[in-house]
Amino acid sequence: MSDTPREFQLIARYFRPLAGPGGLGLTDDAALLTPPPGRQLVLTADAMVEDVHFPSTQSADLTARKLLRVNLSDLAAKGATPIGYLLTMAIRRETPESWIADFTAGLRQDQDQFGIVLLGGDSTSIGGPACLSVTMIGHVEPGQAVRRHGARAGDGIWVTGTIGDGALGLAVAQGRLPGDADGWLLNRYRLPSPRFDIGLLSFASACLDISDGLVQDLGHLCRAGVVGAVIEAASVPLSSAARAAGLAWRNICLTGGDDYELLMAVPDEKESVLRAVAQRSGVKLTRIGTFTDTPGKILVRDEGGNDIRLDRHGWSHF
Amino acid sequence: MSDTPREFQLIARYFRPLAGPGGLGLTDDAALLTPPPGRQLVLTADAMVEDVHFPSTQSADLTARKLLRVNLSDLAAKGATPIGYLLTMAIRRETPESWIADFTAGLRQDQDQFGIVLLGGDSTSIGGPACLSVTMIGHVEPGQAVRRHGARAGDGIWVTGTIGDGALGLAVAQGRLPGDADGWLLNRYRLPSPRFDIGLLSFASACLDISDGLVQDLGHLCRAGVVGAVIEAASVPLSSAARAAGLAWRNICLTGGDDYELLMAVPDEKESVLRAVAQRSGVKLTRIGTFTDTPGKILVRDEGGNDIRLDRHGWSHF
Repeated sequence: MSDTPREFQLIARYFRPLAGPGGLGLTDDAALLTPPPGRQLVLTADAMVEDVHFPSTQSADLTARKLLRVNLSDLAAKGATPIGYLLTMAIRRETPESWIADFTAGLRQDQDQFGIVLLGGDSTSIGGPACLSVTMIGHVEPGQAVRRHGARAGDGIWVTGTIGDGALGLAVAQGRLPGDADGWLLNRYRLPSPRFDIGLLSFASACLDISDGLVQDLGHLCRAGVVGAVIEAASVPLSSAARAAGLAWRNICLTGGDDYELLMAVPDEKESVLRAVAQRSGVKLTRIGTFTDTPGKILVRDEGGNDIRLDRHGWSHF
Repeated sequence: MSDTPREFQLIARYFRPLAGPGGLGLTDDAALLTPPPGRQLVLTADAMVEDVHFPSTQSADLTARKLLRVNLSDLAAKGATPIGYLLTMAIRRETPESWIADFTAGLRQDQDQFGIVLLGGDSTSIGGPACLSVTMIGHVEPGQAVRRHGARAGDGIWVTGTIGDGALGLAVAQGRLPGDADGWLLNRYRLPSPRFDIGLLSFASACLDISDGLVQDLGHLCRAGVVGAVIEAASVPLSSAARAAGLAWRNICLTGGDDYELLMAVPDEKESVLRAVAQRSGVKLTRIGTFTDTPGKILVRDEGGNDIRLDRHGWSHF
């Protein structure tokens, strides 16, 4: 009785080397984690599904890295420091071993880049599209996680980086948008960068990462804070590649998902702190509007002060 | 801009009421968890896939409860106390709301039964079988989690409850095994009971929960402990329903999965502790064999002392 089913061989070969000390070499039913003393844990879980979040043809290492990064982005939006993750993976029985080799190589690359380890998980077969799920764990000073609620009327609406690249990158990937010769948009869609480079978010009264689209995610901050918002469309920072796409794509930039930039509420009196952080970190921070005292009402204004009507506000999975 | 996509409506209606305080009403990107002071966290993740782990026709509340229980069982096998869980759910876009209502009713029932809360998660569509994944979090006294390694030659092999009911219950569900008039086997397959009722496992040198099958899971303990094992087949405790199925089903009991009973290594000098625990808890504990000093070699002996050859050792997903 020395045979070992393929499942365990694959785990031993490809996943065990990714495990941190608490992962017990993935040889146990559960992982052990001694929380950093005096810290609060921050937990998030995001799944990615084949043909919904990534095309079947996408390289497995990119899929793995994006899977980690969309989860890491949620921790970055709370100002948390990542520790590690659990992974559940449902893939077709006939998935070639080379896919698993590439997938785990991607995990390794981003584990090293973001200083995280694999803690545990599960693998199973599925008779359909692959379903990959990560629970990511980080920590913060107790009470210091930046929440979604907390925006007040008068707070500035700020974003990191540039907005809309993710949605335009998807359009490039789907052949709907030509150009993007240097691959900027495509890369922004395929491999978002969790915004850990900005450091602690002590200047923000509320924060989230833009995954569903700027306007829809702004709606989350407004609902949580019981406020409204006005966005000045001309202030929304676009990359050169997004500007090159032309005005016809502007609304897509405002409503498309997958940017993984941070959207924050910043009180006026904290702007000096924000500017110091921007200078120190080198991260571009842009004010794009103001929270208002009309709960739930989000206006997007053009240069002439006229309301822009948007066809859709963002992405919903159902 | 007051419309709310269906995804958020469903989360608000069905999942928000399940969230504990750290879940922030599921209105944030991440959950906050203040670890119990001085305790070590125990983390496990298990996924269930439609048509692999449960039939499409199974009621959603049973599916939800089994999903929680297979994860809780991993914590029980480590002697841990559960806190809560994160859930990612990939279901078809056309899944009726009644399925979600039933699913969350099942979550609620077992949350109450096991004293856990929903901490966070994610929902998405999938163009194929549903994929449901849970990360369950619990805690133990630091260093007291019972690991898979630790079995020594001479330790007794012990199990809780009765073995094989899960596999026979699956056969009943598939129409391969008649009888089971009172539904005992079917219920054992559909709704396993995590073995928290036995309490702390201080008498065990190694432990896991039997999910892949007795012999295969015993193989895990043997590999982890670098030992072998001899099972006396006649000692393996069977329920009346399993005995009624007849000798033809005995090997299925030894190799089939889904029991979620505990399989433990217990040194002779700890047997008195074990017996006291059995008496106090009312949990049936049975010695079924002995760990040996022939690493990796697992023998199953019949009443005459002859080796039983098993066709398969358990379940592998690939």
